[in-house]
Amino acid sequence: MEIPESMKAAVLFGRGDLRVVERPVPKLEAGEALLKVESIAICGSDPAIISDGFPYQPPMGEFIPGHEFTGTVVEVAPDVSEVSLGDRVAIEPHKGCGRCVNCLRGLYTTCLNYGKNEKGHRHYGWSSNGGYAEYASCHVNCLHKLPDNISFDEGALLTTAGTVLYGYERLGWIRPGETVVVMGPGAIGILSAHLAKILGAGKVILTGTREDRLAIGQQLGADVTLNIGQVDVCQTIMNLTGGLGAEVVVECSGNPQAACDALEVARKNGRISFTGIYHQGVNLPLDRIVQGNLSITAPKAEGMWNLERALPLLADGRLNVKPLITHTYPLEEINTAFDTFTQRIGGAIKVIIRP
Amino acid sequence: MEIPESMKAAVLFGRGDLRVVERPVPKLEAGEALLKVESIAICGSDPAIISDGFPYQPPMGEFIPGHEFTGTVVEVAPDVSEVSLGDRVAIEPHKGCGRCVNCLRGLYTTCLNYGKNEKGHRHYGWSSNGGYAEYASCHVNCLHKLPDNISFDEGALLTTAGTVLYGYERLGWIRPGETVVVMGPGAIGILSAHLAKILGAGKVILTGTREDRLAIGQQLGADVTLNIGQVDVCQTIMNLTGGLGAEVVVECSGNPQAACDALEVARKNGRISFTGIYHQGVNLPLDRIVQGNLSITAPKAEGMWNLERALPLLADGRLNVKPLITHTYPLEEINTAFDTFTQRIGGAIKVIIRP
Amino acid sequence: MEIPESMKAAVLFGRGDLRVVERPVPKLEAGEALLKVESIAICGSDPAIISDGFPYQPPMGEFIPGHEFTGTVVEVAPDVSEVSLGDRVAIEPHKGCGRCVNCLRGLYTTCLNYGKNEKGHRHYGWSSNGGYAEYASCHVNCLHKLPDNISFDEGALLTTAGTVLYGYERLGWIRPGETVVVMGPGAIGILSAHLAKILGAGKVILTGTREDRLAIGQQLGADVTLNIGQVDVCQTIMNLTGGLGAEVVVECSGNPQAACDALEVARKNGRISFTGIYHQGVNLPLDRIVQGNLSITAPKAEGMWNLERALPLLADGRLNVKPLITHTYPLEEINTAFDTFTQRIGGAIKVIIRP
Amino acid sequence: MEIPESMKAAVLFGRGDLRVVERPVPKLEAGEALLKVESIAICGSDPAIISDGFPYQPPMGEFIPGHEFTGTVVEVAPDVSEVSLGDRVAIEPHKGCGRCVNCLRGLYTTCLNYGKNEKGHRHYGWSSNGGYAEYASCHVNCLHKLPDNISFDEGALLTTAGTVLYGYERLGWIRPGETVVVMGPGAIGILSAHLAKILGAGKVILTGTREDRLAIGQQLGADVTLNIGQVDVCQTIMNLTGGLGAEVVVECSGNPQAACDALEVARKNGRISFTGIYHQGVNLPLDRIVQGNLSITAPKAEGMWNLERALPLLADGRLNVKPLITHTYPLEEINTAFDTFTQRIGGAIKVIIRP
Repeated sequence: MEIPESMKAAVLFGRGDLRVVERPVPKLEAGEALLKVESIAICGSDPAIISDGFPYQPPMGEFIPGHEFTGTVVEVAPDVSEVSLGDRVAIEPHKGCGRCVNCLRGLYTTCLNYGKNEKGHRHYGWSSNGGYAEYASCHVNCLHKLPDNISFDEGALLTTAGTVLYGYERLGWIRPGETVVVMGPGAIGILSAHLAKILGAGKVILTGTREDRLAIGQQLGADVTLNIGQVDVCQTIMNLTGGLGAEVVVECSGNPQAACDALEVARKNGRISFTGIYHQGVNLPLDRIVQGNLSITAPKAEGMWNLERALPLLADGRLNVKPLITHTYPLEEINTAFDTFTQRIGGAIKVIIRP
Repeated sequence: MEIPESMKAAVLFGRGDLRVVERPVPKLEAGEALLKVESIAICGSDPAIISDGFPYQPPMGEFIPGHEFTGTVVEVAPDVSEVSLGDRVAIEPHKGCGRCVNCLRGLYTTCLNYGKNEKGHRHYGWSSNGGYAEYASCHVNCLHKLPDNISFDEGALLTTAGTVLYGYERLGWIRPGETVVVMGPGAIGILSAHLAKILGAGKVILTGTREDRLAIGQQLGADVTLNIGQVDVCQTIMNLTGGLGAEVVVECSGNPQAACDALEVARKNGRISFTGIYHQGVNLPLDRIVQGNLSITAPKAEGMWNLERALPLLADGRLNVKPLITHTYPLEEINTAFDTFTQRIGGAIKVIIRP
Repeated sequence: MEIPESMKAAVLFGRGDLRVVERPVPKLEAGEALLKVESIAICGSDPAIISDGFPYQPPMGEFIPGHEFTGTVVEVAPDVSEVSLGDRVAIEPHKGCGRCVNCLRGLYTTCLNYGKNEKGHRHYGWSSNGGYAEYASCHVNCLHKLPDNISFDEGALLTTAGTVLYGYERLGWIRPGETVVVMGPGAIGILSAHLAKILGAGKVILTGTREDRLAIGQQLGADVTLNIGQVDVCQTIMNLTGGLGAEVVVECSGNPQAACDALEVARKNGRISFTGIYHQGVNLPLDRIVQGNLSITAPKAEGMWNLERALPLLADGRLNVKPLITHTYPLEEINTAFDTFTQRIGGAIKVIIRP
Repeated sequence: MEIPESMKAAVLFGRGDLRVVERPVPKLEAGEALLKVESIAICGSDPAIISDGFPYQPPMGEFIPGHEFTGTVVEVAPDVSEVSLGDRVAIEPHKGCGRCVNCLRGLYTTCLNYGKNEKGHRHYGWSSNGGYAEYASCHVNCLHKLPDNISFDEGALLTTAGTVLYGYERLGWIRPGETVVVMGPGAIGILSAHLAKILGAGKVILTGTREDRLAIGQQLGADVTLNIGQVDVCQTIMNLTGGLGAEVVVECSGNPQAACDALEVARKNGRISFTGIYHQGVNLPLDRIVQGNLSITAPKAEGMWNLERALPLLADGRLNVKPLITHTYPLEEINTAFDTFTQRIGGAIKVIIRP
């Protein structure tokens, strides 16, 4: 395949200043493959990156954000045999250094050499260039081959699915028949509800404010959806669980009240996962943790190679991410895409760019 | 409800001498409920109990076997509020003493006071009377309320499902997308394959010799079935797993060769569950355990209250045990039922008695 | 042994009104032993019970508090063979109902039938009568036989040790060489530091305000003690851990600032145990949990039969509780004992009553 | 520091033909440090490597075996900042590729790219050159800095300690007060007994045939030693455990009978670790695994960076490996050293070469 010298890429030139410009196609280093980017999803963390920048990012004027993407392999470094030209792949953004104690123990999303390119760490779309471009280079540690029947658009949601699964891994997986409460019907929340059911949960309860999103959650496996503006969520969940509370609570909204509610509706010995983005401190009743013998964990991103676990589920249709993909745009319209996403225009959930 | 003084019961009078006779309806002790037995499944362990007796059993002439059953609550002891008259329930056979260290740590299927009725231990149909009768008394620790849409016949398979789930609990649950090999398509094996898929497994491979049973496994979620008389099972599994082997192997056949194969087809870091009945020693290549960083566990019966976990799955139809129920008989024909079961007449898998 | 009809007991007659009066010696129920109480420690939770009462307690005028005690078996119910007359025993206060799902899964300190005597639940010194008396009856589920070389006074601290160990069980045990920070040098905190070292911790750091207590912690294995009034604790811990933070943090002080500091000084993937009493909400930076891939647990009391685990350590001298026992009083002086304890007179840590 | 062009090295020229010859000092690749080898221990696996070769080894005439060593850093590759010139280090032999799914999940001792140097895998002294030489190059992933008070000879036993700890990690760590049986008082066995105690075990029972080794085990913490030639080991262990058996059994002898005994003396719910070298199949009573709810694991070498966990224990003297170091030889006498080791001359346990 002919690889051009230059490509179109969305480059951050300053706070809030994202422009599609011409840039050189990346050169490969050892262990890397060059991808023709096919589909890339806007992540909930992207708007803050665009508006504020990120401490470890490449310089303004060079930084290409974007970290939830799929592509076609068009070139590989000489040492790469894990993928071949023409392979369809999804990427995960975290590539650990592979040499710190965390990486050596499999905890690469908390690599101790974060941002140190010279140690081998990469965080595509954050501390390294990412996928809002026609081409991107990625290390094989971040590549997951897509079966034929997973589309590029669907594959772009694998990082989200992988994060949900890592959250479940960290709380000891979903156990058969458990009641699972998911708070916050964003992409993470809806997939948390969906995957809980796929992993054998009993009753899945999804809470939120937006009826359209709750409806998608219901379509994807939530048994009960609760609009927190209309019902007393805690009381309703206690009623739905015979007064015991839920075995698992996944808090995805980032809302301080929801975080408190999570402790309220967790049953004794329950497990809580904080999967939201918490911009501020939250006043938590810690005594409930002690008296309730609770466990609290949180997934730092898509660790432990969990995208790979999601692949068979997505390939055979058990995992259905299509209802989350509400909009697609070409790269040139990336700023419109961001507006659509942040303002939730047209019920936007996941907005996809096709470079 | 009127409870008669006497009832019909299948009583073991001597080795292989099971007769349906009149017996007094059991009197309740504290914590117990009296059940009108509705449906009881012959367990793979029952024929040996009938033919050989069991060391801890009640005396010949008094012993009523049978331990996989459902019934309707017709009387409760004064301290019982967990179930009410008319409740439809499934039982699990192990009731721990509740006071040994194993019971106190939740390991009641390995109660250290096994067979000591005076300490509160019961093993219905083994060391205490069971369910091949019109009535049976059971402790509330062994009762699981059936939702309306679970039939008594289906509920009689909950102990099997609970054993499968306890096996999965002990090997760290099925993790999403894992390849699971199940050896031996008996009731345990078929439900192992079926439940693996329900819990999020990727590829499920079921091996055995009987095509009719393999076909049921396929109907219930096995992606691949292998007839060990026709293919080289180990080689085929290695081929199906890219040469790596399976993450999880559940050996349910009790066959020594299969037990060895389990170690052969487990991938590095794989988890193996021995769920069969092993009448003899098995010559195992232990070096594979060390070199392969393998883990081996086995479920001692339906521990950790796992029947309860199966209930929501059975209630909403994800778990489908109907294809396993091949025959039903009235209590009077119990010996015919046993013949059908042991000789696998008419493709018998689970044979149900309806007293 | 001659058992009298009546005994001296400290009875709560109203809020703050604890009086030593004559009461009948308890009659045994099934599963119980009668103990001549030898030694009972004041727990940090006792003063609140005395001053405020407890929602589930026996009626005022009948309630005998006290729940950390040892005694000599002087009578056993007919079904009891676990202990014999003359046995020296320590008790743990939680006796689960043995029939709820939590108890069946070994989680008896979070029994769902809390306070329901008719279901078999007991919480000695809380919802049932306890040990501030000459005699007390206890169920065998709560008795741990003392080896000869453990004194009754030492044995009275086993519930504290059991709670510390359950906390470690819930956070996945201490792993060899780990750096452990313990905040709050009360009895729980000092034993947390001491036991961490006994279980193979590397560096143990104990923080607090009272130099005398910190000194005892150092005597019992803390490598570093930090007076939070004199140093910047978080900064010092980061310095002591090469900027990484501690693998394990055990927060025992109940202080809101310390709870926040726990999240601050936990390294990525660290495990935090909240073991304090938190009277109010605490404003926690939840984002640290997510970004740091942290785990938070808490022990609800001395679960999973952990007193038994402490016995060999106490018997062979590895676990040394003597430095914690600062005062002993006869039963008649119980109110003086409480004053000594609450006002920390003479550096009081554990104050023992010998009825 | 002046680094010479050539060095003395023990090179394998053919089966059993190990000669000390001149070889070029290794050149560094990225991520590597050059060590002046100070101390290297003969591993129980070395004699077979020398006598038979190893399938993945470098060519005869080039292969330098040896994989348990310490050294001084004398040069580092440009990207290496983890260690500095003059640092005293211990090495672990497994360096995973860092890019297969096993490595990405922290399971580098079961790297799927075993023996593929081009993928970054190294197994020093096995598939790559090792430490029976004056100099050796090692990747930083395999280096552990030695505190000053750990001698080079002691540090050479860290791989053994790391393997023992990984074995304990895989069986869920030693829990406080547990009875641990260790079979086979070689270096692994003695350290298993020693470390069990350091991690909080209760009674530690060491079994074997050689009284001198059992005596060292006793010196290092075994409470009971049993000479299997003199007592009925299984019966004695059952007697010592009140008829229940041991919570943990670590089989280190590689003896088939011992492997069977391990299942015999494990208590219900017990955990067994096979840590021996099993040259042949072992006839195991699998039914005991099922009926006893047993768990079996095995450590594949020193995984999960467990050498690091051993460092604080060795540094502060809790872990004492000195009694295991029975002989030291210069490199020139390596063949004498091997004879001493294999024939156990003079009670040889660990034999050290100082190049």
